[in-house]
Amino acid sequence: MNNSLNKNIEIAAVIGLGLIGGTFAYALRDNKIVSKIIGVEANEEHAKKALELGLVDEILPLDEAVQQADFIILATPVTIAATQLPKILENVDEQIVIDLGSTKFDIINSVKNHPKRGRYVASHPMWGTEFSGPEAAQHNVLRDRVNIICDKDDSDKDALEFVENFYRKIGMRLVYMNGEAHDVHLAYVSHISHITSFALANTVLEKEKEEDTIFNLASSGFESTVRLAKSNSATWVPVFKQNKENVLDVLNEYISQLRKFKSSLEKENWEYLNELIEGSNKIKKILK
Amino acid sequence: MNNSLNKNIEIAAVIGLGLIGGTFAYALRDNKIVSKIIGVEANEEHAKKALELGLVDEILPLDEAVQQADFIILATPVTIAATQLPKILENVDEQIVIDLGSTKFDIINSVKNHPKRGRYVASHPMWGTEFSGPEAAQHNVLRDRVNIICDKDDSDKDALEFVENFYRKIGMRLVYMNGEAHDVHLAYVSHISHITSFALANTVLEKEKEEDTIFNLASSGFESTVRLAKSNSATWVPVFKQNKENVLDVLNEYISQLRKFKSSLEKENWEYLNELIEGSNKIKKILK
Repeated sequence: MNNSLNKNIEIAAVIGLGLIGGTFAYALRDNKIVSKIIGVEANEEHAKKALELGLVDEILPLDEAVQQADFIILATPVTIAATQLPKILENVDEQIVIDLGSTKFDIINSVKNHPKRGRYVASHPMWGTEFSGPEAAQHNVLRDRVNIICDKDDSDKDALEFVENFYRKIGMRLVYMNGEAHDVHLAYVSHISHITSFALANTVLEKEKEEDTIFNLASSGFESTVRLAKSNSATWVPVFKQNKENVLDVLNEYISQLRKFKSSLEKENWEYLNELIEGSNKIKKILK
Repeated sequence: MNNSLNKNIEIAAVIGLGLIGGTFAYALRDNKIVSKIIGVEANEEHAKKALELGLVDEILPLDEAVQQADFIILATPVTIAATQLPKILENVDEQIVIDLGSTKFDIINSVKNHPKRGRYVASHPMWGTEFSGPEAAQHNVLRDRVNIICDKDDSDKDALEFVENFYRKIGMRLVYMNGEAHDVHLAYVSHISHITSFALANTVLEKEKEEDTIFNLASSGFESTVRLAKSNSATWVPVFKQNKENVLDVLNEYISQLRKFKSSLEKENWEYLNELIEGSNKIKKILK
């Protein structure tokens, strides 16, 4: 087909048809990357919905999908991805495999020294919402987003090149990093935000038994800070499992930052509170 | 004028021309509530900017503004509002005074037993952004937002009626509460969110000295949870000062909720972590 990035890449398989897998299925179609998309999905309802939505052309078992596809996109929860990836590479010849997980170290490690390691490119598109399942998938949301490619030198040159071109074609900005550094940074700029939201929701739900009060009074500020508390545990427990040490480091730092606020209030040290707030305002210079 | 809610209300004074005062000045104008708006603003640059933006028709000292105005809107930081309000009521005859502060107990208490208490209606519009100053003021953002009126029985009937009609005319939904309950609820559904964001920004800024990494990697989730960390300390230190006890209660509860996440990670108790996340997901039923 004319718009294909590479004449040998005709069929894609998307494994895991949730928010992220579904969004990538749309990106494959909308950008005419392949002529056929096979879906792999353990949840029957999700599989049916994905077909209805036109995310994929057919649903196949993992092995058959891997056999038929030229380009394999792994979008299952990260602990599942880490067990699927080595099995997928067993059945791969010249195909190209990427994963889209929010953690990288364990997934990359699962195929360390694998004879087919070179066919795999580790990547992480920095996009998501608090919703889940195939119906949460969106068109045209990946453009201008960052995609982190990890340990690129461990991928075959042609596989890396195809993946880079694919991401550029769908409009993503590429950043390179090793898998270990990725997981440390992500604990700070993404994973901790989920815990702060989950804990905030639990705090408020604990107190505000009258749900109407929350509904009536919730300001846009509260909605914004608590938004991620709607996120799916099936996605996030695996992320915290795989990035436990880094997340714990950040969580400890976060609790100690909160204690500074607590102490400034308890001691009525308003100058210190002012300093803490002005310090945090520096985020303005970085995030517009 | 034709569209006035009350023929005796011709001139408004807005005291404090920041984000909230400025937004209310726009609402007064856009809804043709009065024919003239006087501004009171201690910061000379802000005063100049407010005139330039057409927020107000002239800037006057507080006393003169109160003397001339029929409807007085107090939009200064809450600790300043609590010192200004009794002085304003000294100079009030039949005028109507409202404040827009995020705390209510101390402000209401500042005029407890004041001979002119009846001319004051305590209110809190549930709208704001993380930006500040007259340039942050926005048109048409108050519609469909909740406005909490506190201790309404302590206001004169005609003053309350005018204020209710004013808020309805600009499209706000009214909720009634006593000032003490207001401050407890607000600690949960607004004030704590600011602390969670300030502390998150400080955590990340502490770690990520390379600002480019934050900029490149910040997902929309992080941006959403950290957004309020751009908020102005001149607004928020006074709020925490006045709502210290309630905010401390919530902050303690929040830290103990975080400790549950910490413990589930440390003990690798993934079932418990799953429970904590699923518990927090209940916020979905309340906030769409």
